[in-house]
Amino acid sequence: MSVESLKSKLRTVPDFPIPGILFWDVTTLFNDPEGLAETLDILYDMYKDKGITKVVGIESRGYVLGAALAARLGAGFVLARKKGKLPAETLSIEYSKEYGTDTVEIHSDALKADDVVLIHDDLIATGGTAAAIERLVRRFGVTKISVNFLIEIEELEGRKLFSPDVEVQSIIKV
Amino acid sequence: MSVESLKSKLRTVPDFPIPGILFWDVTTLFNDPEGLAETLDILYDMYKDKGITKVVGIESRGYVLGAALAARLGAGFVLARKKGKLPAETLSIEYSKEYGTDTVEIHSDALKADDVVLIHDDLIATGGTAAAIERLVRRFGVTKISVNFLIEIEELEGRKLFSPDVEVQSIIKV
Repeated sequence: MSVESLKSKLRTVPDFPIPGILFWDVTTLFNDPEGLAETLDILYDMYKDKGITKVVGIESRGYVLGAALAARLGAGFVLARKKGKLPAETLSIEYSKEYGTDTVEIHSDALKADDVVLIHDDLIATGGTAAAIERLVRRFGVTKISVNFLIEIEELEGRKLFSPDVEVQSIIKV
Repeated sequence: MSVESLKSKLRTVPDFPIPGILFWDVTTLFNDPEGLAETLDILYDMYKDKGITKVVGIESRGYVLGAALAARLGAGFVLARKKGKLPAETLSIEYSKEYGTDTVEIHSDALKADDVVLIHDDLIATGGTAAAIERLVRRFGVTKISVNFLIEIEELEGRKLFSPDVEVQSIIKV
């Protein structure tokens, strides 16, 4: 299955969540058995030789492929969540959004400095959340970080927000 | 690895999210590469011969093992989400909680009547959300439904809320 074929399994929804936004809906791809399996195969091939020890998934669609990939790679899976949802002690980071700020957290014992971390989300638009999580992961002392998205909205140039030494990859560019 | 060994990888957090509640934290198990892989192996063995065509994951911790299991089974993955988060047309169901009500949704085109559905979440306590999702799945005309939890708090007897023809299984009983 080609990337074009995977892209054809996505759905676009106009005016969601607000008027003027064209929403790229990944649920139709996840719903398709071949699409889900093939996407995971592509991800596995991209990262199988990178020595990844932890995959950090961004709540909540980033958990879908993130955890499946972690299991396939023999890595652990780490949940990045919005403030107040993780039960134990956390490290957190606040970041700016278009209107106001948001805070994301990771459990304080979830990463170690020598981990090789892959941050995953389903989609990168402006990239604010994922870039904040890159900074948060660095607070654990982690230096080897990659970032992956299923879909990248290229014109928004979100990948420019990451540190220069971070490899940013996406499967479907729109 | 035994179930007791998996259980030892869980963490309990007192007084979360409110005083008096002992919270069973699965993130420490997901974080552990062997724990994650072994849990997925157990789930796969439980369901590999059941002809499952769709796994419905309950937001958001239910996406972690739910999607990984769907991919392993060659099934599709369906996201059950809180109201207003799915972009396209949905079927929804309102259900009672201890204080007030909540609403969960599934995309209208996510299931077909002849699907064999496994509903998955990380934990069953009182079971209200998962039982509401069983009723919601039936509205698609689906008749073959199983339900699975990583952790079951047995004394709360949440499994009694499901229809008699639904097989309810859990891996770790606490």
